Amino acid sequence: MTGNTFGRVFRVTTCGESYGGALGIIVDGVPPGLELSEADIQPDLDRRRPGTSAIESPRGEEDRVEVFAGVQGGYTTGAPVGMLIRNVDRQQMHVDQYAEVKHLIRPGHAEWPYFVKYGRFTDWCGAGRASGRETAGRVAAGAIARKLLAREGVDVIAYVTEVAGIKARPMGFEEAKAKRDQNEIRCPDAEAAAKMIERVLEVKAEGDTAGGIVQGIARGVPPGLGEPVFDKIDGDLAKALISVPAIKGIEFGAGFAAKDMKGSEHNDIPYIEGDRIRHRTNNAGGVLGGVSTGEDIVLRVVVKPTCTISLEQDTVHLWDWKPAKFRATTRRDAQICSRAAPVVEAMMALVILDHLMIWRGTKHLARPETANVPEGTKEYFDLLNRACPDTEWHR
Amino acid sequence: MTGNTFGRVFRVTTCGESYGGALGIIVDGVPPGLELSEADIQPDLDRRRPGTSAIESPRGEEDRVEVFAGVQGGYTTGAPVGMLIRNVDRQQMHVDQYAEVKHLIRPGHAEWPYFVKYGRFTDWCGAGRASGRETAGRVAAGAIARKLLAREGVDVIAYVTEVAGIKARPMGFEEAKAKRDQNEIRCPDAEAAAKMIERVLEVKAEGDTAGGIVQGIARGVPPGLGEPVFDKIDGDLAKALISVPAIKGIEFGAGFAAKDMKGSEHNDIPYIEGDRIRHRTNNAGGVLGGVSTGEDIVLRVVVKPTCTISLEQDTVHLWDWKPAKFRATTRRDAQICSRAAPVVEAMMALVILDHLMIWRGTKHLARPETANVPEGTKEYFDLLNRACPDTEWHR
Amino acid sequence: MTGNTFGRVFRVTTCGESYGGALGIIVDGVPPGLELSEADIQPDLDRRRPGTSAIESPRGEEDRVEVFAGVQGGYTTGAPVGMLIRNVDRQQMHVDQYAEVKHLIRPGHAEWPYFVKYGRFTDWCGAGRASGRETAGRVAAGAIARKLLAREGVDVIAYVTEVAGIKARPMGFEEAKAKRDQNEIRCPDAEAAAKMIERVLEVKAEGDTAGGIVQGIARGVPPGLGEPVFDKIDGDLAKALISVPAIKGIEFGAGFAAKDMKGSEHNDIPYIEGDRIRHRTNNAGGVLGGVSTGEDIVLRVVVKPTCTISLEQDTVHLWDWKPAKFRATTRRDAQICSRAAPVVEAMMALVILDHLMIWRGTKHLARPETANVPEGTKEYFDLLNRACPDTEWHR
Amino acid sequence: MTGNTFGRVFRVTTCGESYGGALGIIVDGVPPGLELSEADIQPDLDRRRPGTSAIESPRGEEDRVEVFAGVQGGYTTGAPVGMLIRNVDRQQMHVDQYAEVKHLIRPGHAEWPYFVKYGRFTDWCGAGRASGRETAGRVAAGAIARKLLAREGVDVIAYVTEVAGIKARPMGFEEAKAKRDQNEIRCPDAEAAAKMIERVLEVKAEGDTAGGIVQGIARGVPPGLGEPVFDKIDGDLAKALISVPAIKGIEFGAGFAAKDMKGSEHNDIPYIEGDRIRHRTNNAGGVLGGVSTGEDIVLRVVVKPTCTISLEQDTVHLWDWKPAKFRATTRRDAQICSRAAPVVEAMMALVILDHLMIWRGTKHLARPETANVPEGTKEYFDLLNRACPDTEWHR
Repeated sequence: MTGNTFGRVFRVTTCGESYGGALGIIVDGVPPGLELSEADIQPDLDRRRPGTSAIESPRGEEDRVEVFAGVQGGYTTGAPVGMLIRNVDRQQMHVDQYAEVKHLIRPGHAEWPYFVKYGRFTDWCGAGRASGRETAGRVAAGAIARKLLAREGVDVIAYVTEVAGIKARPMGFEEAKAKRDQNEIRCPDAEAAAKMIERVLEVKAEGDTAGGIVQGIARGVPPGLGEPVFDKIDGDLAKALISVPAIKGIEFGAGFAAKDMKGSEHNDIPYIEGDRIRHRTNNAGGVLGGVSTGEDIVLRVVVKPTCTISLEQDTVHLWDWKPAKFRATTRRDAQICSRAAPVVEAMMALVILDHLMIWRGTKHLARPETANVPEGTKEYFDLLNRACPDTEWHR
Repeated sequence: MTGNTFGRVFRVTTCGESYGGALGIIVDGVPPGLELSEADIQPDLDRRRPGTSAIESPRGEEDRVEVFAGVQGGYTTGAPVGMLIRNVDRQQMHVDQYAEVKHLIRPGHAEWPYFVKYGRFTDWCGAGRASGRETAGRVAAGAIARKLLAREGVDVIAYVTEVAGIKARPMGFEEAKAKRDQNEIRCPDAEAAAKMIERVLEVKAEGDTAGGIVQGIARGVPPGLGEPVFDKIDGDLAKALISVPAIKGIEFGAGFAAKDMKGSEHNDIPYIEGDRIRHRTNNAGGVLGGVSTGEDIVLRVVVKPTCTISLEQDTVHLWDWKPAKFRATTRRDAQICSRAAPVVEAMMALVILDHLMIWRGTKHLARPETANVPEGTKEYFDLLNRACPDTEWHR
Repeated sequence: MTGNTFGRVFRVTTCGESYGGALGIIVDGVPPGLELSEADIQPDLDRRRPGTSAIESPRGEEDRVEVFAGVQGGYTTGAPVGMLIRNVDRQQMHVDQYAEVKHLIRPGHAEWPYFVKYGRFTDWCGAGRASGRETAGRVAAGAIARKLLAREGVDVIAYVTEVAGIKARPMGFEEAKAKRDQNEIRCPDAEAAAKMIERVLEVKAEGDTAGGIVQGIARGVPPGLGEPVFDKIDGDLAKALISVPAIKGIEFGAGFAAKDMKGSEHNDIPYIEGDRIRHRTNNAGGVLGGVSTGEDIVLRVVVKPTCTISLEQDTVHLWDWKPAKFRATTRRDAQICSRAAPVVEAMMALVILDHLMIWRGTKHLARPETANVPEGTKEYFDLLNRACPDTEWHR
Repeated sequence: MTGNTFGRVFRVTTCGESYGGALGIIVDGVPPGLELSEADIQPDLDRRRPGTSAIESPRGEEDRVEVFAGVQGGYTTGAPVGMLIRNVDRQQMHVDQYAEVKHLIRPGHAEWPYFVKYGRFTDWCGAGRASGRETAGRVAAGAIARKLLAREGVDVIAYVTEVAGIKARPMGFEEAKAKRDQNEIRCPDAEAAAKMIERVLEVKAEGDTAGGIVQGIARGVPPGLGEPVFDKIDGDLAKALISVPAIKGIEFGAGFAAKDMKGSEHNDIPYIEGDRIRHRTNNAGGVLGGVSTGEDIVLRVVVKPTCTISLEQDTVHLWDWKPAKFRATTRRDAQICSRAAPVVEAMMALVILDHLMIWRGTKHLARPETANVPEGTKEYFDLLNRACPDTEWHR
C-alpha cells in the first residue's frame, strides 16, 4: 500500500534518503541454507555506486553493506535478512547547497508532487527519498536474488545499448555478459562505449545531460512463470522497472517495432530442440500470455537525461509563489544509464525470483548448496528425510 | 498472488474463459451512494465487444451485464458489486474448430507456457483464460471506476493513433475525446482512420493481421497520487497496461524519444497559473518521481498484430512431439487496437482511482451525488453530521 | 484492503447480500487437474443452509450452486473457479418486515457501525452484507479447499461441543467425524445433542436465543506450515474464525486454561514414533511458534447467542434521533452454532490450504488425481516430463 | 506472504534474532509532520525490555533505539522510518549454553516445526527469530502508532489482570491506565500484584513458570473502522495478538462467557447520549459486524506459562534420533505476562491505526501538530491551501 515494500514471496522493504543517516534493507523470504555474506552483495553495490568516473556523480559513497540479521554461521536461516548501508559523504557544504534552493521547484525533479503529497515536511536534501540513492537498497536485495537464481540456472544481465544517440552494435548474450562491465558506461561494445563517453563529456561541458537505453536479458528462466491475468511476469517487470528513477518507458522483445509488423512476422515459430520447445525468433521477448516461454526474457528501458543540469532554468519559488531562476550547483550525473544498468539487473532478478517462488513454493528453493555444507548437514538431512518423507528436505 | 485480483483499495476480481459459461466480476471498494445500474456499464462493454465491424472478430456476443450484488434501490451500498456476463455465441462448430487443433501450439498464442504451467488441463477452447475475452471483465469494472472518477473531475480517454504504419495527426484532448468513437477503428482522425481501415482490410485479405499504437490520456488527475518508491503511479499503470493481452510496450510523456534529448530539453519548466503550478511542456507525461503532477497523464502502448492468422505456419504437435503445420480457421480480429482502446481506458481508470482512494481514503469518496438523492437522504446526513461530527458524512 | 477477498495463494473473493439477487464466489489459485463439479460443493452448502430444523431459521433457500468458470471437461483448468448461488426465498412480505424497522438500530446487529461507515445507503434488508448469509460463499469455497486437502491427507472437521450450558462428552477425532452430522445441532454426542435441542427450543419459546461452543480439528496437517513472525498459521486461523459472524473468541489447544497451568504442565513432551516426532499431550493445539507441529490443530470458538430475538428491546430511532422500542418479527435462528460448524470447517480449510500452497508452491498441488484421468493424460504427462524435466509434472 | 511485514497502510517490517547483531524495523506509511525522535520510542521499549525484575529474564539489554531514516529536522517526512536496536548482551557463555543443546527439542519451544521448515540452518541460539526478542520491533513501531493515535484521540492500554490464579479486581479505564506501570508485573491492582509476584517467585523457586491474562482496551476509537467481511477489525486484532509469542487465545467483550448468555442478555442496548450513540453494556467489546461501534474495544488474551523451565523434561535428540533429557540453564522469564502487556498495546495500536488510515486515507492523518511547528510552516500551508484547494493541507 504505502510503497516501500516490493514482491510477494521474495519481499524487499527499504528505507533511507539521500542525505539521511543510512539506507536500511530487509529481505524477507530468503530460503534457509544459502551461503551469504557481505562479500556476495558488495560487488553489485560497487557497480552502482557513484564517484567512480567523470560521467557520473563525484559523490564519495563507498556503499559498505553490513548484514546484521538472517544469517548464522555463514548461511541464511530462513529469517529475514537485514542490511544497513551508512551514508558517509554528506558534508555540510553539500547540505547547504540544497538548503539554499529548498524553496524552489527544480525542473524535472519530484519536488512539486512530493510537496503536494507530503507538504513542507518533505525531505528537501538531495531529493530525499526521491533520490536515486534509494536504488542502492534495490541492488543489495537484488544481489541476494541473483545468487539464488544462479542456483536455479537463471542469469540476469543488463547493459547500456544507446546513449546520446550513439548505438552499440548488436551482440550475443555471452559476449554482452562478459564485456558489460569493461568500461564506465557499461556498454559491452567498446568502440561505441568510447564514443558514448566522449559525447557525454561534451554534453556535460555544455552543462547539460544525456539519456539512453538499457537492455536487460534473463537467460535460463524456466517456462511457466507469471500469474494470469493481472500478475503476469511482464506486467510485474514493467512495474518494477518503471519504478526505477528516470526510466520512462519499457518494451519487451520486438517492442514498439511490433506496430509495423504483421502477425506472420511477429509470431515466433516453435520447434523441437531435443526435449525442449524452442522458437525461431523471440519477438515475444520470452513471454506469451504473461507467462515465461523458456526463451530469454528481453526488455529495453529508456532512461531520461538526468534532470539536474547546470544551465539556468525558469522555475517557481514555492514560498513566495512567484517566478524564479534556478541553476544547480550540487553534485550530479552527466548521464545515469551506466548506473541504472545494475539496478535493472536487480529489479529483473527480484521479479523473476518472486515468480519462481510463487509457483514452486518457498520450500522448493530451501535446499543446501551441494558444496561447502557444514559438518553434520548430510546427517541432518538424512534424518529429516526419514522423519518427514513428504517434506523432501533431501532434495 | 494468484493473479485474478487487481488493485488494493478499489479491487477487481474476475473469472471466466472465452468459451466458458460466463464471465464473473466482483468489484470491491465501491463507496456507498453511487447511483449505479447496468445502464452505466453497458456502453463501455459495447465499445469493446466483438462482431461490430469487418476489421474485428465476427463473434456475436452481446456482452449483456447483470449486476446482482452491491446495489440497492439504485445506489451502491458499500458492499462489493457483483456482475455477470453470460457467454452466448459458442456454437459447437466453433468449439470443434478449437478441438481439432488443441494438440498444436498456435504460434504467438500462450499455449506452450500455459501447457507447462497448467498441463493438459489447460482450457484449450478459444485460448480459454488467455483469450482477450477476459478484458470484458476489466471494462465492466472500469466503467464503475470511470463514473467515480468523473465525480472527482478526472476524465480518462484512449484512442488509436497508429495502425499498420498509418499515423493519426496530433490533436488536443477535447477533440480526441469527442471523436474517438466516431469510427470502427477508434481513431479520432477521420482521414487517417479511413486509411487505417483500408490498410487493415488489405492485410486481412492476405490472411494476415496488423498492429498499432493506442494512446491513453487522463485529465484532471490531482497532483500527489502514487506511492514511492515501489508503488509509483506510473509503475502501476505500466503493470496494468502490460497485463492487457497483446500489449508489448509502454511509454510515458516523451517516452522513448527521451533517449535523444538533453536534460535541458526534457525538463518540463514549471510556472504559476492562477492558484496552480503548471508546466510549459509535458515530457514527463504527468508523473515525476512516480507521483502525479496535475498535468495530463499521457501514455502510449504498442499493440502487437493479432497472432491468429489464416496463413499456414510451422509449429509443433505437442502430443506426438513432432513438427506440424497450423492454419487458423477460427474467428479472429484483423487488428485488435480498436478493441484494446476501451480496455486501456478501463485499466487507467482502475489504477488512478485506486491511488486516489489509497491517498484520500475510502471514506473520502463515500458521499452522495448532489442530485437525485432519494427522499430522506439529507435528513440522514444532517443526523450523521450531528452524531459523528468527525466522520464528515455531510461533505 | 477492502475486505471481501481472503487468502493469498488460494484466494477467495465473495459478494452478495442477504436479500440481493445472488451470492458470487471467485476462487483463485485452484490448481489444474482437480475433478470438480457442483456435486462436490452442494453437500457442504446443504449442511449450512437454513430451513432444515426448528432450531434454525425457516428461510427456504436451497442454496443451489452453479459453477460457471474455471472447469472444463470436469476438471479444473488452473483458471479461477466462478460460482453463483441465486437467492430465491425473498418474498415481499419478508422485505417489508425489514423495511418497517430500517430506521431502528436492532440491538446486537451491525446497523449502527454500518450506518456510520456506509451511511444511509447501507443495505437494510436482512442485514445486507452483514448477514450470515454471506457465509454460504465461504462454505462453497471451503468445499474446494477441503477436496484439495483430502488429496494431501488433511481432514478438517468442526462440531458443536456446548450449547446453552449443555456440554458434550469428550470424544476422539474419528468418532466426532463420523457422528458430527447425525443430528440437527451438529453435536456428535447424541445424548447431549438431544438435551441441547430441548433446551434451545425452550429458549426459543421464551422469544430468546442461545450461544455455545464449536470445536474445530484439522488432522494430517504436515509440520512446517505458518510464516513467522506476523503470518503465523494460528494468527491466520484466528483472523479467519473471528471474521465469521457471531464468533467472539478463539483458543488453541489448552487455550484459556493455560492461565492456571505451570510450564511443566503446559509443555507438550516430544517423543519418537517410528519416523515421526509426536507429543505426549497437545496443549499447544498443534502449533508452536506459529508453525504447525504435525499434531492435530485444535481450536474452539465461542458463538454468541443470535442477536435477533422476539422480545421487546429498547433502542434508538436513527431518523428521528430519539428512543424507540424494537421487537423482531423476521425469520431467525434460535441458535446459530449448528450452522456455524460447517463455516468453521470451511475457514480452517481455506487457511491451511493457503499456507500449504505458500510453502509448497502452487505447482506442488497441481497434479492429477491418480484415478479417473481422461484418456491421453498419461501421455501428456510423460511428454511434459520429457520436455521440462524440472517442472515435475510427472509427480 | 513471507510473514515479516504487518499491516497494509501503516505497515511494519521487522528483522532480527535473539542473538543476532541487531533488530531492524522499517515503518512505512507514517504521515509527514509528526514530531518524532528516539525519545518518543524509548519509553515503550523500556517497559518491555528484560533485566528489570526478578520475575523476568535477567538478560541485560538496554534496547537503545536509533532512528536512521524517515525523519528530518525532528519531523517525519512521509518516507519510511528506519530504526535499529543493537543486541548487546550476548556473551559467549550464553551462546555456549544454547550450543550445548542445539540438537535437542526444547519442549514447548518452536524447535521442531522450525527445524522441519528451515532445516538444520535454523538459528538455534536463544530461539533465534522465534524468540520473544523480536517483539521489541513491534513495540518500537507501536510507539509511533500510539503517538499518531493520540492525536486522533485514541488511547490504547494493556495490563495484567490475572497471573498464576491470582485475579486483579475490576477497575475503570482511567484507573487502570494510571496504575498499570506502577509495579513490575504491570497489574494496576497493587494488592493483587503483590500476591502475583509472591506466587510467581514461588513457582520460579520450584524451577517452573506461570501463565496469566492480559487485558487490552482501546478508548476513543471512532465508529466505522473495520472492512467486512474478511478484514474485520476484530479479526485483524485476533491475528495481531495471536502472532505474539506465548499468546494462545483471545476473546472480545463478554468473550467465552457468551456461551451461557441469552440473546436478551448479550445484546448491548443502544441509547442516545448527546450527539452520540452509546450502549448500556459492552458485551460486544466495541465491535459489531466486524466494525468498531465507538465503545471501548476490549479484549483479553491468555499468555501461556513460559516454556523454558529448569526442571528436567523428556525430549528427543534430533541428531541421534533417540530419546533424551533436557534441563534449561539459559536465562528465562518466570512469567511473561508483564512483558507481553506493552506488546499487546503495540499490536492493538498498529491494527487500529491501520484501519483508521484505510478508511480515512493516508492524507487525512498527514497534518501538522498544532504546536511547535517550525517557522514558516503556516505560510507553507497557506500557500498549499491556495494552490491546491482540494488537497486540504490546511486542515
